[in-house]
Amino acid sequence: MKWLNVLLVFLPIAAFLEFTGGNPTLIFLSAALAILPLAGIMGQATEQLAVRAGSAIGGLLNATFGNATELIIAFFALQAGKLDVVKASIIGSILGNLLLVMGLAVLVGGLKYKEQRFNLKSAGTITSLLTISLIALSIPTIFDYAARAVAPGAAAQLDVNLSDAAAVVLIVMYASYLLFTLRTHKDILSTSDDDEAGEGHGGELWSVPLSVGVLAASTVAVAFMSEFLVGTLEEATASLGLTEFFVGLILIPIIGNAAEHAAAVMFALRGKMNLSMTISLGSTVQVALLVAPLLVLAGLLVGQPMNLVVTPLELVAIVAAVLIANSVVRDGETNWLEGVLLLGVYVILAFAVFFYPVR
Amino acid sequence: MKWLNVLLVFLPIAAFLEFTGGNPTLIFLSAALAILPLAGIMGQATEQLAVRAGSAIGGLLNATFGNATELIIAFFALQAGKLDVVKASIIGSILGNLLLVMGLAVLVGGLKYKEQRFNLKSAGTITSLLTISLIALSIPTIFDYAARAVAPGAAAQLDVNLSDAAAVVLIVMYASYLLFTLRTHKDILSTSDDDEAGEGHGGELWSVPLSVGVLAASTVAVAFMSEFLVGTLEEATASLGLTEFFVGLILIPIIGNAAEHAAAVMFALRGKMNLSMTISLGSTVQVALLVAPLLVLAGLLVGQPMNLVVTPLELVAIVAAVLIANSVVRDGETNWLEGVLLLGVYVILAFAVFFYPVR
Amino acid sequence: MKWLNVLLVFLPIAAFLEFTGGNPTLIFLSAALAILPLAGIMGQATEQLAVRAGSAIGGLLNATFGNATELIIAFFALQAGKLDVVKASIIGSILGNLLLVMGLAVLVGGLKYKEQRFNLKSAGTITSLLTISLIALSIPTIFDYAARAVAPGAAAQLDVNLSDAAAVVLIVMYASYLLFTLRTHKDILSTSDDDEAGEGHGGELWSVPLSVGVLAASTVAVAFMSEFLVGTLEEATASLGLTEFFVGLILIPIIGNAAEHAAAVMFALRGKMNLSMTISLGSTVQVALLVAPLLVLAGLLVGQPMNLVVTPLELVAIVAAVLIANSVVRDGETNWLEGVLLLGVYVILAFAVFFYPVR
Repeated sequence: MKWLNVLLVFLPIAAFLEFTGGNPTLIFLSAALAILPLAGIMGQATEQLAVRAGSAIGGLLNATFGNATELIIAFFALQAGKLDVVKASIIGSILGNLLLVMGLAVLVGGLKYKEQRFNLKSAGTITSLLTISLIALSIPTIFDYAARAVAPGAAAQLDVNLSDAAAVVLIVMYASYLLFTLRTHKDILSTSDDDEAGEGHGGELWSVPLSVGVLAASTVAVAFMSEFLVGTLEEATASLGLTEFFVGLILIPIIGNAAEHAAAVMFALRGKMNLSMTISLGSTVQVALLVAPLLVLAGLLVGQPMNLVVTPLELVAIVAAVLIANSVVRDGETNWLEGVLLLGVYVILAFAVFFYPVR
Repeated sequence: MKWLNVLLVFLPIAAFLEFTGGNPTLIFLSAALAILPLAGIMGQATEQLAVRAGSAIGGLLNATFGNATELIIAFFALQAGKLDVVKASIIGSILGNLLLVMGLAVLVGGLKYKEQRFNLKSAGTITSLLTISLIALSIPTIFDYAARAVAPGAAAQLDVNLSDAAAVVLIVMYASYLLFTLRTHKDILSTSDDDEAGEGHGGELWSVPLSVGVLAASTVAVAFMSEFLVGTLEEATASLGLTEFFVGLILIPIIGNAAEHAAAVMFALRGKMNLSMTISLGSTVQVALLVAPLLVLAGLLVGQPMNLVVTPLELVAIVAAVLIANSVVRDGETNWLEGVLLLGVYVILAFAVFFYPVR
Repeated sequence: MKWLNVLLVFLPIAAFLEFTGGNPTLIFLSAALAILPLAGIMGQATEQLAVRAGSAIGGLLNATFGNATELIIAFFALQAGKLDVVKASIIGSILGNLLLVMGLAVLVGGLKYKEQRFNLKSAGTITSLLTISLIALSIPTIFDYAARAVAPGAAAQLDVNLSDAAAVVLIVMYASYLLFTLRTHKDILSTSDDDEAGEGHGGELWSVPLSVGVLAASTVAVAFMSEFLVGTLEEATASLGLTEFFVGLILIPIIGNAAEHAAAVMFALRGKMNLSMTISLGSTVQVALLVAPLLVLAGLLVGQPMNLVVTPLELVAIVAAVLIANSVVRDGETNWLEGVLLLGVYVILAFAVFFYPVR
């Protein structure tokens, strides 16, 4: 993924444009391009720390910083009061991970290998978590619609109460998931692929201070770029002819997940489908059980109370994602056709969001 | 489960309060607490009769009286014209069996055993039945909504016709299910666990007259308590600050299913996950295919015509239950994390119903 | 299936009635009855050509002409501007294949054999395709509803754009599916059943000119009968007391799929469950990925622009079909009870469509 680092040139460009009051659309595009390599560097530094820290703390680090880029972008959008963009980016991240990341990995890997097997047991456990966590995430939306039909005035209060309660339960679920994967059932989820997982990131081992420094620097840089991105969102989308709905549901998740995309495809090309599936499914679980509730709680802190109520569209997308992930994962094998179909659904969905009149 | 019998003290208390015109809330609570041990005693007497009767008739007895408590409570609510409570308790029973009973059994068993395996074949058959039967149950609701949109005046007639027709088809399905499990495919669904299933209920064998007597007495007692419960429902819920929606969807199913809860957890603790899953999944199938249509037909007899049209909320809960059950059962194994997640969904759901403005 | 050919007598009857201005209801019924054997003859001629052409081209022929009857009937309904009937017949064909055809085959086969196994691998692949393709098919409907809620005026344009884009993506998916089954993964999907598949159609081998001639003649005859059927649809449904909704969702799919029904049941009776499942699942995939988008493109050509937006009812039926197919196929085995349940859902559904007030 080293060639991605060329895009780091957009880091100073975005900063220069921002501080000289440059064209908002150019700032938006530069910041977006600069985030792509930064997310990769954050991931690399996290892994270096994880290797040093041993498997338990290391796993915790990976699990917590895995979606840090998306969390940072969403946080600035939240602070700016763009709650619809925040929620769209949560849903978009789930769809991106399950359709685009998994689809690309399955297709590219499938063009090289006739069939790719993965550990049905670990994938099965993750899929099961995925199903349950997405259903938990969808409860506030369903009750909001029902309440609006019978007592429109009381729905807003229900949304606040229920989203806060659900956020706490979701975080407890995530903590249980960490305990499960890092302690009680560590052996079940690990696979022979894992032994070689490190290889992909180069053989060299960074010192702890270097890792910490790189992690800190890249996090700060992502934060600045995210602020620029959100600050220019409105003008940029208008001048590019896009809706905020498209940006939230399609563009931001692609930017935030670029590192995962690259890693999942790379592992698929090496025949390590287990790792590919774990990246795609694990990242989805993390978004549903950690990123989403953290944003609800962060909203309370920054005075932008956000609920977990999404549009019917987004709700249906969640259900569809569950059905698809269950179906593809079920037989423990993938082939190129499944990749084509996953990408096909994503393309139709992207067309739909693009043509979608307003939001 | 013998310690539960202590609660039998509430049987005379409820009766005394009822006949002396006591506080409705106290009557409600006493009747609820009295039903808990009575449901267990009914189950015990049924099993004693079943053992005497041989496997075919015994299975039929168990299959018919398994949800007798819920059926009796629902019948009195039906007679009192509280159709929304009846329907909520049907849906609540399905959710309680799939999320609360299964979740508790999986969690408690998982804390003791690292992994719990069950017979994928028999669980797979039941899950398949579950999926199809819940879809059958949801057809009247879906057509009702569609009809209301195009021809509001004609929807009520559709509801009656369709619910009656569906009730008959559902009962034919249940009869087929009994024929399948008790005759044609008896061997497939039985497991090595079954040999020891009886142990849980103590080694002593009752005489037939004793069993019949106990079954009759506990059924009559449940019936009285159910009448008291329904009769004080309105005043009790008001004074306890609960909605009838919460009582129907959460409280009544917990009371009615307490015996199943205790049995499922006990079998999970003994490592007999097959029996736990059978109790939870089998009871759900029975509610969908037998209890629900029987209540529709009973409604015609007592002049309280009830249809199978539920709220969108309840419909979504059905779909979620199907997805979750399929997902957890699929790999033939459970662990404590799956238990936590199932219970987490139930807790979020209970919060949602509790915060839900009105009904 | 030779006894079906007796119904060919209705071919001249329908033609005679049509050209002498006979009773529309009689024309409708005669045309419907005449199509039944014609569809079978088309299938037989296609297979004869397929045997001659070798497996690659032969498979392509089978894959393309497999749903030719439904495509022709739907085309004439499209040309007549009966877009709701066309869409209903697409959904009805999916439901008919998954519930009626699969249900009959599973039941009839299950009465003869205690358990019927099929190749989980090939069925798993098809089910996975099925899930993804039905989700792709449902996207236009979901976005249409969402758009109507926020920008009613813009929804029609969205429908056109999105349905055209989706139609192209669906056809690309289908081409990939053909490439997969006929070239890259031919061996995976073929089974030992296939060796004997030909037997069912008699041992004799037709000459190529005979096959081409029979195919051409039966296609022309089906086309004429379809035109008669559609031309008398309105008067016939009115005089028979049926709605166009019932005709589109239930009657036309039964007529169009009669040949598949007969073949699937016949193979099930011979214990060749693989072929039965392939017919039912494969035909469904073909309707979703080929017939539906072809009709959208044909609509553009004949000046009857048709979108892929269906009613909520039909959308839910699609989701239910996915859940059911996944559930039944999952364990690689079927038994008579699953057949009863599939048919039970179809019967409840048919009642619902029959009682449904208007359309």
